[in-house]
Amino acid sequence: MTTTAPFSLPDYTLQPIGIVHSNLSSRKGAPRQGYEGAPDASVEVHPAFARALDGIRPGDDIVLLTWLHQGRRDVLEVHPRGNVQNPLTGVFATRSPDRPNPIGLHRVQVTRIDGTRLDVRPLEAIDGTPVVDIKPVLERSDDA
Amino acid sequence: MTTTAPFSLPDYTLQPIGIVHSNLSSRKGAPRQGYEGAPDASVEVHPAFARALDGIRPGDDIVLLTWLHQGRRDVLEVHPRGNVQNPLTGVFATRSPDRPNPIGLHRVQVTRIDGTRLDVRPLEAIDGTPVVDIKPVLERSDDA
Repeated sequence: MTTTAPFSLPDYTLQPIGIVHSNLSSRKGAPRQGYEGAPDASVEVHPAFARALDGIRPGDDIVLLTWLHQGRRDVLEVHPRGNVQNPLTGVFATRSPDRPNPIGLHRVQVTRIDGTRLDVRPLEAIDGTPVVDIKPVLERSDDA
Repeated sequence: MTTTAPFSLPDYTLQPIGIVHSNLSSRKGAPRQGYEGAPDASVEVHPAFARALDGIRPGDDIVLLTWLHQGRRDVLEVHPRGNVQNPLTGVFATRSPDRPNPIGLHRVQVTRIDGTRLDVRPLEAIDGTPVVDIKPVLERSDDA
């Protein structure tokens, strides 16, 4: 990772608000995207943030933002999908988990809510992945 | 913001990779969403990350992830859209910029690329908003 602070902007501190529980235990075996055969999983939200969940209901589509903690932050170009046949491409033009700020976006459906645990599907994030935000899918646009 | 570290997960450091230039100068006057009359804007990416842009072309739809630096991180419930007629709702069920980790998601179209500057539209983020990631919109799903 570069040590040059862009534009003299400060760094910011992300505080995980939850954690993924999943049968997927390693990045190697994980699907690239949720729709590529990813399993059901659950998100355990820290009780300190319980009130922030109020209004989420089973059946809702939500966007999980995760911190892809195994991502390499010093990678700027990748062969898409890890296939060397694909020409090197800037990570901002890909969904690679290797990127300067490895934030994952996952559109999932909530299937069950038990206290601060949300069962969701499908989710390609591996077990232990920190969750940093949850947002509703907007009806009006695709920018989930 | 709570000082209890959830699940003993560590905090993470976000490093801005770019900055928004826009005629929108204050949160008060900004549209709530891009499709609600937001203006054209541009994103200046730090030259250190130039290679990460390789593969993005004018006409592409992309997702900008920003750090909504004016968001209040200690807010867990809001009246949606700032209207007290709307019942208090957990921030994870809203797109409020006030939330524990104020990451913004913005689906925009790239209209022009000049070096590491991307002209985009429409963008409701205000001038000076830090950009932390850029991702392509996936064709297969809505999880942009």
